[in-house]
Amino acid sequence: MGLDSDPTKIPSCLNVKDDPVFEFNKRIIDATLPYAVAYKPNIAFYESSGSEGWKSLEKTMNYIKSLNSEVFTIADAKRGDIGNSAAHYAKAFFEKMDFDAITVSPYMGYDSIEPFLAYEDKWAIILALTSNVGSVDFQVTQFQLPYLLEKLGIKTCYGKSLYELVIEKSLTWSGSKNIMFVVGATQSGMIKNIREIAGDSFLLVPGVGAQGGSLREVSANGMTSDCGLLVNASRSIIFASGEKDFDKIAAREALKLQKEMEILLREREVI
Amino acid sequence: MGLDSDPTKIPSCLNVKDDPVFEFNKRIIDATLPYAVAYKPNIAFYESSGSEGWKSLEKTMNYIKSLNSEVFTIADAKRGDIGNSAAHYAKAFFEKMDFDAITVSPYMGYDSIEPFLAYEDKWAIILALTSNVGSVDFQVTQFQLPYLLEKLGIKTCYGKSLYELVIEKSLTWSGSKNIMFVVGATQSGMIKNIREIAGDSFLLVPGVGAQGGSLREVSANGMTSDCGLLVNASRSIIFASGEKDFDKIAAREALKLQKEMEILLREREVI
Repeated sequence: MGLDSDPTKIPSCLNVKDDPVFEFNKRIIDATLPYAVAYKPNIAFYESSGSEGWKSLEKTMNYIKSLNSEVFTIADAKRGDIGNSAAHYAKAFFEKMDFDAITVSPYMGYDSIEPFLAYEDKWAIILALTSNVGSVDFQVTQFQLPYLLEKLGIKTCYGKSLYELVIEKSLTWSGSKNIMFVVGATQSGMIKNIREIAGDSFLLVPGVGAQGGSLREVSANGMTSDCGLLVNASRSIIFASGEKDFDKIAAREALKLQKEMEILLREREVI
Repeated sequence: MGLDSDPTKIPSCLNVKDDPVFEFNKRIIDATLPYAVAYKPNIAFYESSGSEGWKSLEKTMNYIKSLNSEVFTIADAKRGDIGNSAAHYAKAFFEKMDFDAITVSPYMGYDSIEPFLAYEDKWAIILALTSNVGSVDFQVTQFQLPYLLEKLGIKTCYGKSLYELVIEKSLTWSGSKNIMFVVGATQSGMIKNIREIAGDSFLLVPGVGAQGGSLREVSANGMTSDCGLLVNASRSIIFASGEKDFDKIAAREALKLQKEMEILLREREVI
């Protein structure tokens, strides 16, 4: 469940509260906890309110932890810095706020991910193939060999994609058992290929729901005997209604997705 | 001037203050303002203290703005998310805190950078070739064409690097006049190549000082008639002394670097 709690989109009935974003999250969590395996706040929507937004985020995490639930927590932060800076980001999300996992960008390479992998029971979820239009700019670019090919009279020819290299290489790093990958649901045609490269690694799959990905297609291509998928929906659930009963409507939408997933898990005999 | 104000490394004499990090920044800024063209807080070192750290950052930015100086401000945040999330990160750094620029990761492509370029007088500084060991993992990987090459009996062959593609492609995006690139000073051998691809774009060059990059070499390879370089030093200046007069020592180190830069600028007749 993506807690993309954009302050400008939460139901107006909450605007009288001291901390409307926290109140919104609390009610969404209370209503959807039976159907969610994980909560994933997108940090951008908190950061846009500065330190106040960070307070709402901290309160949300404290609230989730106070429930004594087994529910998994993911900071969708897409951080990506090196060495000591990365260690400080890890401290922010794994220690100050006790998230179980964080999304990270692989662009800067091994030493930008390693500080997150140093935590025994925490997870680094590396961006591999994302669900946005711009994913074609670099992630699926298959690099050309202009000088060789020109000599051979061949104009265009393709090789390995960056996202494939990211998955292959990161799985050779020490601590790689604590790695998952972000794979957009809108890229379900490619999930089969990713599953082959990524072995049994869990895939975090955003883009189901509002972004139009199909859960059945994702499962057919990416599910393992252990499930292997963390499927995320955000806006299609949390903003399903802007009325006072937004939490009930969110629960109904969450239940719908949970039922859909349950069928797929039974078909594959995962449960 | 990198304000990598790690709370565990600031002089112990400041620990009696309400907000030691802000007090540290304020004294560093007061002492170095005559020698610095820009301040670049690395957000990781604030975020590791949660919402309190964000408050120190906000106070630092308010203080810089209150000086009515022309000094440039860079949020070294390395953010990289898409669409609406990216827009919220832009809001956090360009509106809530009025930074002039932010460092961003290109991994997710155009729609992860565009929301930053939508601000007329703000800058997106895109990670190109960074100064860390892990930069070889993906940034300088020159992709292979295994299947074609196997057919031709050629085992290994190389093409264009990812960092080159990032620079070339991003300069075709609308709003690209508001783009700069991060290029590590430890990669000075490659700066010549980057300058050829990047035209007159400004390069943000961290890694001078503590990380061992040579200013003369960077300037020889990367300086334009307009300077074209924002050279950063952090630890070698701000943590030059842990004593009570840390700000005076920082000023001395900053002046040293400023003088070195002034010589190089005169040699090239930029000033």
